Amino acid sequence: MTASIQPSTAAGVQYLLRLGDACLVLSHRISEWIGHAPILEEELALGNIALDLLGQSRALLTRAGQLSASAGGNAFDEDQLAYLREERHYLNPVMMELPRGDFAFTQARNLIAACWLLPMWTRLQASTDAEVAAIAAKAVKEVRYHQQHAAEWVVRLGDGTEDSTRRMQDALRQIWPYVNELFASDAIDAAAEASGLGPAWSSLKPDWDAAIDEVLAEARLARPQHTPHVYEGVRGVHSEHMGHLLTTMQSLQRSYPGGVW
Amino acid sequence: MTASIQPSTAAGVQYLLRLGDACLVLSHRISEWIGHAPILEEELALGNIALDLLGQSRALLTRAGQLSASAGGNAFDEDQLAYLREERHYLNPVMMELPRGDFAFTQARNLIAACWLLPMWTRLQASTDAEVAAIAAKAVKEVRYHQQHAAEWVVRLGDGTEDSTRRMQDALRQIWPYVNELFASDAIDAAAEASGLGPAWSSLKPDWDAAIDEVLAEARLARPQHTPHVYEGVRGVHSEHMGHLLTTMQSLQRSYPGGVW
Repeated sequence: MTASIQPSTAAGVQYLLRLGDACLVLSHRISEWIGHAPILEEELALGNIALDLLGQSRALLTRAGQLSASAGGNAFDEDQLAYLREERHYLNPVMMELPRGDFAFTQARNLIAACWLLPMWTRLQASTDAEVAAIAAKAVKEVRYHQQHAAEWVVRLGDGTEDSTRRMQDALRQIWPYVNELFASDAIDAAAEASGLGPAWSSLKPDWDAAIDEVLAEARLARPQHTPHVYEGVRGVHSEHMGHLLTTMQSLQRSYPGGVW
Repeated sequence: MTASIQPSTAAGVQYLLRLGDACLVLSHRISEWIGHAPILEEELALGNIALDLLGQSRALLTRAGQLSASAGGNAFDEDQLAYLREERHYLNPVMMELPRGDFAFTQARNLIAACWLLPMWTRLQASTDAEVAAIAAKAVKEVRYHQQHAAEWVVRLGDGTEDSTRRMQDALRQIWPYVNELFASDAIDAAAEASGLGPAWSSLKPDWDAAIDEVLAEARLARPQHTPHVYEGVRGVHSEHMGHLLTTMQSLQRSYPGGVW
């Protein structure tokens, strides 16, 4: 009875889905600000960032769907992968699915994600998969702007009023336990590195640390304490927020199966 | 492409859908308290009230689906009507779809709804439709308890602390503009009264007024000012909250089409 879409479990497919889902789900959360941003300029900025991420996820999911077929599984298009999988088959890190939160939380997450995606896309430009390399060449320019934009807000709020400093520091404290997952490696990751498809996520850590520490210093914010737990969204183990997110995100495609613009 | 379910527009069908949808949507909102009620006893009470309303809606939607066929339309079962219609085809009064709100708002709405449903079910026991009369005979006992339960909370909070009084009075003020719709009459309503299917909603107003005023007096609460606007949920014109409610309520059936327990 289920309309469930299950792409191939081949390492390359899973690797691309992890990144594509990270962009998709973060895009969805950022888009929840539309109509709610504090100023009109920021409304447009967040809308554009969400659209960039959505474009990146479309390209990655399309490529993952093609590779699913060449790995002996079924072929799927971007819409099937974005809208018709079950929760356990979405592979984004848990950080991306956390609720929108306040404006400080949103900018803190955007900064953390952009500082992770920038070295990711930079290295993916050298992917042995020509499609992925081409996606990366476009994405790297977009994410550089995302990083700048979020950094400006983290500095403005972190080095701002007593209230804005407290809220930004709180946001970092809330989000920090989810950082580990962005740099955890496993067999899927190792296979991507070995095949030249893309970098092992753990290799992105030094660049991320340097970029984050620079912003935190300028913002006069303390780096939160490291915590040991590693979330496992990339293996389909999600938080309680994911089901509600998917319910909303999938509702149109579920209500009008096969609907197109 | 759409999987939309459209029952017959015959007056009797629409009349039963209005009441069935009122019970369905209110049940959904009350069930949002599960896991969040202030005390365990209330958790159980609200869960039971939601289940009673759900049972009433099931019976009404089943009967509406049968009458849809005998009116020359398609036959539909309770699940199709509950889960697969589009927003514009749900006919509940807007009051029922308003967000859960705080505990005071929930009890205020439950009181208002129960004081409306009690004379409704009382008269429906004499419906010329034997099925509807049988549903009413069971429902009237359930709703009597719902009314008592909500009245106790409205009195306890209204005649309670400064804070609880303020919150209950605020809740009444928020909900009051939606009361008019419960007693508005139109051709569908007039046809039901004429055929003996059930009462015109406007005829329930004196009973409602008497019951509400008694509770408000005991609770030392002021009756809010009457406002002129009449909402039109019963004609499918819903608030911005309805789409989100349906997205959640329909998600399981939309994700697993035809799924059964």
